[in-house]
Amino acid sequence: MKVLVINGPNMNLLGQREPEIYGTKTLEDLEKLLTKEAEDLHIEVEFFQSNHEGEIIDTIHRAMIEKIDGIILNPAALTHYSYAIHDAIKGAGVKTIEVHMSNISAREEFRSKSVIAPACMGQISGFGFDSYVTALYLLKRG
Amino acid sequence: MKVLVINGPNMNLLGQREPEIYGTKTLEDLEKLLTKEAEDLHIEVEFFQSNHEGEIIDTIHRAMIEKIDGIILNPAALTHYSYAIHDAIKGAGVKTIEVHMSNISAREEFRSKSVIAPACMGQISGFGFDSYVTALYLLKRG
Amino acid sequence: MKVLVINGPNMNLLGQREPEIYGTKTLEDLEKLLTKEAEDLHIEVEFFQSNHEGEIIDTIHRAMIEKIDGIILNPAALTHYSYAIHDAIKGAGVKTIEVHMSNISAREEFRSKSVIAPACMGQISGFGFDSYVTALYLLKRG
Amino acid sequence: MKVLVINGPNMNLLGQREPEIYGTKTLEDLEKLLTKEAEDLHIEVEFFQSNHEGEIIDTIHRAMIEKIDGIILNPAALTHYSYAIHDAIKGAGVKTIEVHMSNISAREEFRSKSVIAPACMGQISGFGFDSYVTALYLLKRG
Amino acid sequence: MKVLVINGPNMNLLGQREPEIYGTKTLEDLEKLLTKEAEDLHIEVEFFQSNHEGEIIDTIHRAMIEKIDGIILNPAALTHYSYAIHDAIKGAGVKTIEVHMSNISAREEFRSKSVIAPACMGQISGFGFDSYVTALYLLKRG
Amino acid sequence: MKVLVINGPNMNLLGQREPEIYGTKTLEDLEKLLTKEAEDLHIEVEFFQSNHEGEIIDTIHRAMIEKIDGIILNPAALTHYSYAIHDAIKGAGVKTIEVHMSNISAREEFRSKSVIAPACMGQISGFGFDSYVTALYLLKRG
Amino acid sequence: MKVLVINGPNMNLLGQREPEIYGTKTLEDLEKLLTKEAEDLHIEVEFFQSNHEGEIIDTIHRAMIEKIDGIILNPAALTHYSYAIHDAIKGAGVKTIEVHMSNISAREEFRSKSVIAPACMGQISGFGFDSYVTALYLLKRG
Amino acid sequence: MKVLVINGPNMNLLGQREPEIYGTKTLEDLEKLLTKEAEDLHIEVEFFQSNHEGEIIDTIHRAMIEKIDGIILNPAALTHYSYAIHDAIKGAGVKTIEVHMSNISAREEFRSKSVIAPACMGQISGFGFDSYVTALYLLKRG
Amino acid sequence: MKVLVINGPNMNLLGQREPEIYGTKTLEDLEKLLTKEAEDLHIEVEFFQSNHEGEIIDTIHRAMIEKIDGIILNPAALTHYSYAIHDAIKGAGVKTIEVHMSNISAREEFRSKSVIAPACMGQISGFGFDSYVTALYLLKRG
Amino acid sequence: MKVLVINGPNMNLLGQREPEIYGTKTLEDLEKLLTKEAEDLHIEVEFFQSNHEGEIIDTIHRAMIEKIDGIILNPAALTHYSYAIHDAIKGAGVKTIEVHMSNISAREEFRSKSVIAPACMGQISGFGFDSYVTALYLLKRG
Amino acid sequence: MKVLVINGPNMNLLGQREPEIYGTKTLEDLEKLLTKEAEDLHIEVEFFQSNHEGEIIDTIHRAMIEKIDGIILNPAALTHYSYAIHDAIKGAGVKTIEVHMSNISAREEFRSKSVIAPACMGQISGFGFDSYVTALYLLKRG
Amino acid sequence: MKVLVINGPNMNLLGQREPEIYGTKTLEDLEKLLTKEAEDLHIEVEFFQSNHEGEIIDTIHRAMIEKIDGIILNPAALTHYSYAIHDAIKGAGVKTIEVHMSNISAREEFRSKSVIAPACMGQISGFGFDSYVTALYLLKRG
Repeated sequence: MKVLVINGPNMNLLGQREPEIYGTKTLEDLEKLLTKEAEDLHIEVEFFQSNHEGEIIDTIHRAMIEKIDGIILNPAALTHYSYAIHDAIKGAGVKTIEVHMSNISAREEFRSKSVIAPACMGQISGFGFDSYVTALYLLKRG
Repeated sequence: MKVLVINGPNMNLLGQREPEIYGTKTLEDLEKLLTKEAEDLHIEVEFFQSNHEGEIIDTIHRAMIEKIDGIILNPAALTHYSYAIHDAIKGAGVKTIEVHMSNISAREEFRSKSVIAPACMGQISGFGFDSYVTALYLLKRG
Repeated sequence: MKVLVINGPNMNLLGQREPEIYGTKTLEDLEKLLTKEAEDLHIEVEFFQSNHEGEIIDTIHRAMIEKIDGIILNPAALTHYSYAIHDAIKGAGVKTIEVHMSNISAREEFRSKSVIAPACMGQISGFGFDSYVTALYLLKRG
Repeated sequence: MKVLVINGPNMNLLGQREPEIYGTKTLEDLEKLLTKEAEDLHIEVEFFQSNHEGEIIDTIHRAMIEKIDGIILNPAALTHYSYAIHDAIKGAGVKTIEVHMSNISAREEFRSKSVIAPACMGQISGFGFDSYVTALYLLKRG
Repeated sequence: MKVLVINGPNMNLLGQREPEIYGTKTLEDLEKLLTKEAEDLHIEVEFFQSNHEGEIIDTIHRAMIEKIDGIILNPAALTHYSYAIHDAIKGAGVKTIEVHMSNISAREEFRSKSVIAPACMGQISGFGFDSYVTALYLLKRG
Repeated sequence: MKVLVINGPNMNLLGQREPEIYGTKTLEDLEKLLTKEAEDLHIEVEFFQSNHEGEIIDTIHRAMIEKIDGIILNPAALTHYSYAIHDAIKGAGVKTIEVHMSNISAREEFRSKSVIAPACMGQISGFGFDSYVTALYLLKRG
Repeated sequence: MKVLVINGPNMNLLGQREPEIYGTKTLEDLEKLLTKEAEDLHIEVEFFQSNHEGEIIDTIHRAMIEKIDGIILNPAALTHYSYAIHDAIKGAGVKTIEVHMSNISAREEFRSKSVIAPACMGQISGFGFDSYVTALYLLKRG
Repeated sequence: MKVLVINGPNMNLLGQREPEIYGTKTLEDLEKLLTKEAEDLHIEVEFFQSNHEGEIIDTIHRAMIEKIDGIILNPAALTHYSYAIHDAIKGAGVKTIEVHMSNISAREEFRSKSVIAPACMGQISGFGFDSYVTALYLLKRG
Repeated sequence: MKVLVINGPNMNLLGQREPEIYGTKTLEDLEKLLTKEAEDLHIEVEFFQSNHEGEIIDTIHRAMIEKIDGIILNPAALTHYSYAIHDAIKGAGVKTIEVHMSNISAREEFRSKSVIAPACMGQISGFGFDSYVTALYLLKRG
Repeated sequence: MKVLVINGPNMNLLGQREPEIYGTKTLEDLEKLLTKEAEDLHIEVEFFQSNHEGEIIDTIHRAMIEKIDGIILNPAALTHYSYAIHDAIKGAGVKTIEVHMSNISAREEFRSKSVIAPACMGQISGFGFDSYVTALYLLKRG
Repeated sequence: MKVLVINGPNMNLLGQREPEIYGTKTLEDLEKLLTKEAEDLHIEVEFFQSNHEGEIIDTIHRAMIEKIDGIILNPAALTHYSYAIHDAIKGAGVKTIEVHMSNISAREEFRSKSVIAPACMGQISGFGFDSYVTALYLLKRG
Repeated sequence: MKVLVINGPNMNLLGQREPEIYGTKTLEDLEKLLTKEAEDLHIEVEFFQSNHEGEIIDTIHRAMIEKIDGIILNPAALTHYSYAIHDAIKGAGVKTIEVHMSNISAREEFRSKSVIAPACMGQISGFGFDSYVTALYLLKRG
């Protein structure tokens, strides 16, 4: 089983800024954690982060071609306006779970609406790194 | 560790109706599954279902008094208007995860907004019974 | 043929207050009238009134179990926000007609929208007690 | 007792198109049924169908002049924007019941609002031909 | 003179949680204070708290039957959606004052609108326990 | 100088209904009054009333062809949705004054907006028959 | 008969600026014209212009005390937000006509709504100085 | 192959007015052009223009009866509110293309929304007479 | 203890107009009543009424300088748009209670929202003169 | 004559997914068809597809520099939020036609609004590949 | 070169209150700083502060008469509703720059919209006293 | 002191198109001017322009790493929807000033709202190239 973890814009800053919201751990820490958790679940995991909507779409398409079994996607700020990623997920047909570290319902008004979630299998938000771990676990469960 | 699973209005009909959305398994099936999963995680699990907003609030309050470690709450249709449950969670101060079996973003417009989620730790939607299992798992991880 | 007539919050005050809108006849008068009309139509009729959303939902569920042929429901003020009753009707699958004594389109803005009607077979509003009588008649016609 | 049945735009296509919503019976079938039902109720019934808002208004005015006892009006698509028919009913002062064959609350968003209903005695929707039959019955009851 | 004080959902948690908004005093403290103040004003005071909308409606109806002179109502979160309580007050015809401990205009957007206030005599918000004391005083003044 | 007075839907009922809003005088009375006032101003006046939007548009076009100097238009209920009349006035290029007998700002919400006024020279509302007389006077002034 | 003409903010700039909207004539020109027209109608006319909402309110109150027969009010930009002037007109009970030189429906969106008009007898807009002359004429007609 | 070209309200004024938007050519010019283009495509073309919504609906119905192969419809101002034409197209089941000479997205706000387009095969706007020619060409292509 | 009572626009008309809403007593009557009530509470009371937003702001500032202990403010129509008074209260830091004689939730839509209340300690509405008396009483209680 | 055909995000998936909406033909098929049709019209045609908004903007700019005669643009999901592409078209000044394969008015609400169309010459939607062919034809006609 | 600096409501409280937003320096400090900066730029600077919308309008008019070269305007809370100041700037035709000390986009929702800015040359917000200094500098640059 | 000037989509077209809004000077002219002005202020200035949201985000991140002292950002059309740039600024923590050449409040509705400004220090709009010069000057002042 192969899973692709995609992190959207500004997730590369993780751990450096706004620790009151996102904690002090870095994207590298997240990837290490997920690698270890994936190993335990016998999942092969791959990572991708980009600040470019287009590269995220290209990567979702590539996942279809490479027959990836599942995508864990944190679209970050693109959550709120990228209908193009919405269509990429619909079009690629790879099982995708939208994740957020923070509880997006409990922050600024604009963060509470996802235009991408309707194209996903489901959404997990509010559990920090565990939002991702949980998604791995869910993909494993099938 | 003690966890309380609360199911809101009409969840007692599970498995009997609208199988295209909620599947054919019953609430009893869900409770059996969770009991088993909880056992594996060394969690003591308790169940409550009600069609009465007031009883759900009373139960959340009781969880505070009985020092329950976490609540898994599927508010069902109350998700969209029960500010009273929102306040109950805020007031009781027990770690609460909102779960939904279906992907609420992908259904009728009114289902996409939760007035309860801002008071919760986080939200999981779209994974059927696994939305609950995942929440157990998350409470265990802490 | 068995029909259940459910009256929502405050309908027990019928005849005592706001006669300019609801007339001077009481809920008992309504039930007497319907009993008589039902008799003429060879329908067995049962009555339920509650100020509790949860009890109304429980009763709709019971109607499913008891194989009631039709429900005549006046959700009163719950018409405008009870998505839980909406889901109860969808879930129970018993043929339900929403009735209102007053013409809800001609009163305060908030009264013109029903969140329950989309789950019903149809809606009748504006004919006083005759809204109920008509619903009986319609259930009879099939 | 004289009753006028007015059908709005496109009701002349009844039975030919969109049978999944409106059934396979024609406007002629409806008129035959109503003629028979009216006879049973000792009501003299007259029919009018037009795709022209103006002709519907003229006919409502004529009903006032000819001292018609009641109007059964299915404004069809005009339901949603014809403030002119609203004013015609208010102005003519003939008791009018708005009817719809389909449950307008359960279809496209724009169909759920009637600008005409506030000027009517009441509204019946969702019962196919029986929406009309019921209206006859209600006018008879007074 | 007899006055009924009704407290809505979660008011039983008073003093235990969110002291930055509601203070550290309990519902019992409130009731003691009001008992004393009522005594000074020669008012007989009775208390009711419930997390159930339906029980609050039942209690308002009972107030009508028992010829209570005035109701002091803190609908808590129900303030923002319970049209059923609105109708109960209108229907029961007992002089009712809506009170809030916090200044609801200065908190979350959703708290600034009351669907119940239009059915009340008036509204007092922002003065902690004194919102209730004031209401007593106003009922006394007549 | 030739002026055309166009009255929209239901204005033919003037004087018979809703006298609390429109007075007890008839359309004929209005036309008599305007004929007399026009005479005094040396204006030739012509009248047209229709319940058909299409006939009103045809008449506005005819006014262009017959080189009418000004139109006094009471679009009645069409005021609120007839973009087609708006375009007719724009297209015909005849100086047009929109008039209303009642003060449309002080009635139902939907009556306060005119989609036709932006295509007119100006709007006069609230002065009964004098709204028309004034328009005559304004066309004369120039 | 005594009439008071009140001009709101920036009307003192008339003729100096934005001649494409308001023409090149000054406020003085307007007052001269109205004086002459009033003379012909045997009306005693008085003028007031202010950029201060409060002074306009004071003046409306004074009109009540001095038993002025009618007010012609161009509230200018205050048209769109001065609920205080709305209340002043309601409170003073002097017959008031709202006038505008330009056709406010045909300009920026915010100009099309008047919060003052519902308190007036009626509204005239779009006829330059003639909007005022017409109002004089209407007050004379009574 | 038979195609019917329907032009809505005010299209008969084409070429006479607002040439900055619609050009200086007339409806007759349009019909000549289309006749010639249709000939080249071996299409039999028929024309209809009306300012009456009802006549347009009647004509759409007639197209169904006469087994017209396609309709090219410019609903003009009716585009924005005629749900009745929307239903006529849905009901008649004749392949219909909505056309506009001007780019409706680039004009007044109200022009950017079509309530008719959802019932059509597609929409072409912004190409003057060529919007129609293109529609012919598309119907030919099938 | 010194308290300043500020009344906004049109409150000087009290008792003369719209007695069905505001009663027949005058502003002088109100001030007499408050003087007497204040005396009983050993409060020194001062009065200010103005139709000028600016003077109300100046007076609030003066209250800060003169170390007034509390302000009772009825902003009247300014309630609904004076962000400047909102800022004045925030800036001056004097404890302020917003009062209204009528129940603003039960009147026109625009009256139900206060832009000033969020800057106040609390709000009292619906008790006539007693809204002010109560505010005095509340300031005394501290 | 040189024409550039730009396809936005996810158009490279054409033919692989969601055939019920977009058919089974691929982007390559589209390009072959257009090449052939362009040949017949003596147009030189060039193709560009990208999932990156930025690359689409760069390409539109390049079209200006390379003096391309026309652009056929299917912005896909970017249609609904890319004000940057809107500005690119406005800025580049190359005649641009917006095309869509599906009828965007007949799908999800968010798809019905284009923020790009106001900057284009016109819009064609609903004709599959023929939307593009038609645009070629229109650019040829000039 | 002569520049007029106008400060709106509550700016006279500067330095005394809400230092977390506006700092601890006073209006006098601001005026001293600007006097010095103006001297360096060879600008003659004049100051005006008022809590009265009307006086601000009068002062803008005076600026036109006295041929002031530029206005630096901080409308404070009036920013959000004073269409009258908007019109004053448009009417007076003096180059005006709107300034704000705080970043109005980053505060309460209502503060993010300026109804005055569209009439100004431009807007500067978020730089404390430097918002004013910058405006001086910009007026100098021309 | 090092400052980075970032220009968003289509700013590379400056001077070539829409000179009535943006003038005839090019991006190169702007950069020359800023280089010269920066020199005078002893600021080291660097330039970046991109039509790609992602590259702008990458560049903002780079500014954090390279310890740039301030960013002058003209997000152009991205101003209105790029929550990702908003988050980049928040995350990078480099002092950022949003600038616009035109007065965005005075153009199309959609241009008046910035989703990026709340993350910036402040905003300057309406002064052409001087918006940038001013920002330099402000960063220098600190």
